[in-house]
Amino acid sequence: MPNPAIVRLYDSTIPSGNAYKVHLALSHLGLQVNVTDLDILATPSETRSPEFLAKNANGRIPVAELQDGACLPESNAILLYLLDGTPYVPQDLLARARMLSWMFFEQYSHERFIAVLKFWTYWGGLHNKRPEEIEQWRTQGQAALEVMEKHLRTQAFFSGDRYGAADIALFAYTQSAADIGYDT
Amino acid sequence: MPNPAIVRLYDSTIPSGNAYKVHLALSHLGLQVNVTDLDILATPSETRSPEFLAKNANGRIPVAELQDGACLPESNAILLYLLDGTPYVPQDLLARARMLSWMFFEQYSHERFIAVLKFWTYWGGLHNKRPEEIEQWRTQGQAALEVMEKHLRTQAFFSGDRYGAADIALFAYTQSAADIGYDT
Repeated sequence: MPNPAIVRLYDSTIPSGNAYKVHLALSHLGLQVNVTDLDILATPSETRSPEFLAKNANGRIPVAELQDGACLPESNAILLYLLDGTPYVPQDLLARARMLSWMFFEQYSHERFIAVLKFWTYWGGLHNKRPEEIEQWRTQGQAALEVMEKHLRTQAFFSGDRYGAADIALFAYTQSAADIGYDT
Repeated sequence: MPNPAIVRLYDSTIPSGNAYKVHLALSHLGLQVNVTDLDILATPSETRSPEFLAKNANGRIPVAELQDGACLPESNAILLYLLDGTPYVPQDLLARARMLSWMFFEQYSHERFIAVLKFWTYWGGLHNKRPEEIEQWRTQGQAALEVMEKHLRTQAFFSGDRYGAADIALFAYTQSAADIGYDT
């Protein structure tokens, strides 16, 4: 098993599904790291400080800090860094590509709609959004959940023959979907 | 070098940056495949037909069809399927994770804003959008371009020491950004 040199995870003070993915993978691997929680509700958000932007110019958590101080952003890239070479990532080229396909689907077609609606619902003033806007995000998130549902009618996992990185990625926000009104 | 068994690429009748990525990778590898162009401006879009939804339940191009008829969606997953094992994808675990980080960034923070604004500008009735909506997409796309610019101040590539999969992914829509009003 590889021994990724992550020493610290930058997370947020409010629950982040993207950071949760990394915590879940670390837990599966029995690894412990230091955690720094940034206040993303502060004005400006602590993820916009010069210190944090030096770690991730895109100003988003999670970010994994490595032993040499270098940083790796993007939850799914951190997952793959942690899990590549373990049974959570298939080695076969096509099986691996299929798993990656679900992880890109998660970021493009799934995460955004559930995460943003979740944020608006719990922390961000859903009442200030236009009904059409909310409806549009809900429709797109629901469509993503239905794509997943269709896959699960014939397959048990999103990472090949067994539970793995894509299952972790897709579980992170799917678990919150029902509470914010999605049909799951 | 692996010999991925892609026999056909599903593309669209209007230029798609996501499909362009795959064409570019195929060209680098000297591979030729059949291409089927779907009319995404039709009502309903040809990507919503039962036949195409059986290939990609998410109803998006590009989709790579393999020799056995199985299909692989998501442009960046197709890129990695084509390029893994070639010099376009680093083998070192951390270098690879950094490249993947840029590819997830591309899908989450970059592609959407440039691609959608490009679509509205050329094919989709930009005049029907609210100014705040256009401004919001423009601001987010510009922020992504600035994150790239910052990286390029000290690094030549997004895929490690040489041009590779993440450079192909990020080039696809960045090349269109100036024409639709982004500062590049």
